[in-house]
Amino acid sequence: MQAADKIAVVEKYIQAFANNDMNLIKEIYAENATVEDPVGSEVRHGIAAIVEFYQQAFGAGAKLELTGPARCAGHAVAFPFCVSVTGMKIHVIDLFEFNIGGKVTSMKAYWGPENITV
Amino acid sequence: MQAADKIAVVEKYIQAFANNDMNLIKEIYAENATVEDPVGSEVRHGIAAIVEFYQQAFGAGAKLELTGPARCAGHAVAFPFCVSVTGMKIHVIDLFEFNIGGKVTSMKAYWGPENITV
Repeated sequence: MQAADKIAVVEKYIQAFANNDMNLIKEIYAENATVEDPVGSEVRHGIAAIVEFYQQAFGAGAKLELTGPARCAGHAVAFPFCVSVTGMKIHVIDLFEFNIGGKVTSMKAYWGPENITV
Repeated sequence: MQAADKIAVVEKYIQAFANNDMNLIKEIYAENATVEDPVGSEVRHGIAAIVEFYQQAFGAGAKLELTGPARCAGHAVAFPFCVSVTGMKIHVIDLFEFNIGGKVTSMKAYWGPENITV
């Protein structure tokens, strides 16, 4: 998978939040993917649980803005962003792992209470 | 492990590069730690191989500057930075995993050719 393809997925991800576009979420993730947001919390397994997670995020009006370039390495991409949601701003780093089909199989979101500003 | 303790390790890591201080590197890492820099390249196992890696980095004059806040989650911290080395600037995200003793057991560096500017 080329770096440009990974970066395109990151851009689609930002776009999904901008437009509350669940079809983009379904396009990005593999059927059997996992989402751990934040890392250390319960892992969501499979696209149904993942869609439910993003329905909540979209419902809360979350919007994402990159705060630096995406970093592509191995089968992964890591990217720093700020999410604005319900009056808060949270600095997050997401890590996507891809399968050979170019779908995200694992998303891990790194952030903690220290990264929240109101 | 508290977030403040993880952030202190990140600050020590930046400081190690600033002062070419290998003792800080030895203090940060567990004996049996691994370093994968960049992710997808050969993994270095154990403190001897890790020290050798940082000797090369220090020898090349690498200096690190955070480009955003460290994100603490689970047993990990992820942080975005720019490394200046041999006339290049490289945007990197490092991921440290800690053991219960507060030592780094795994370092993964996410960056690719797209993240290099001269």
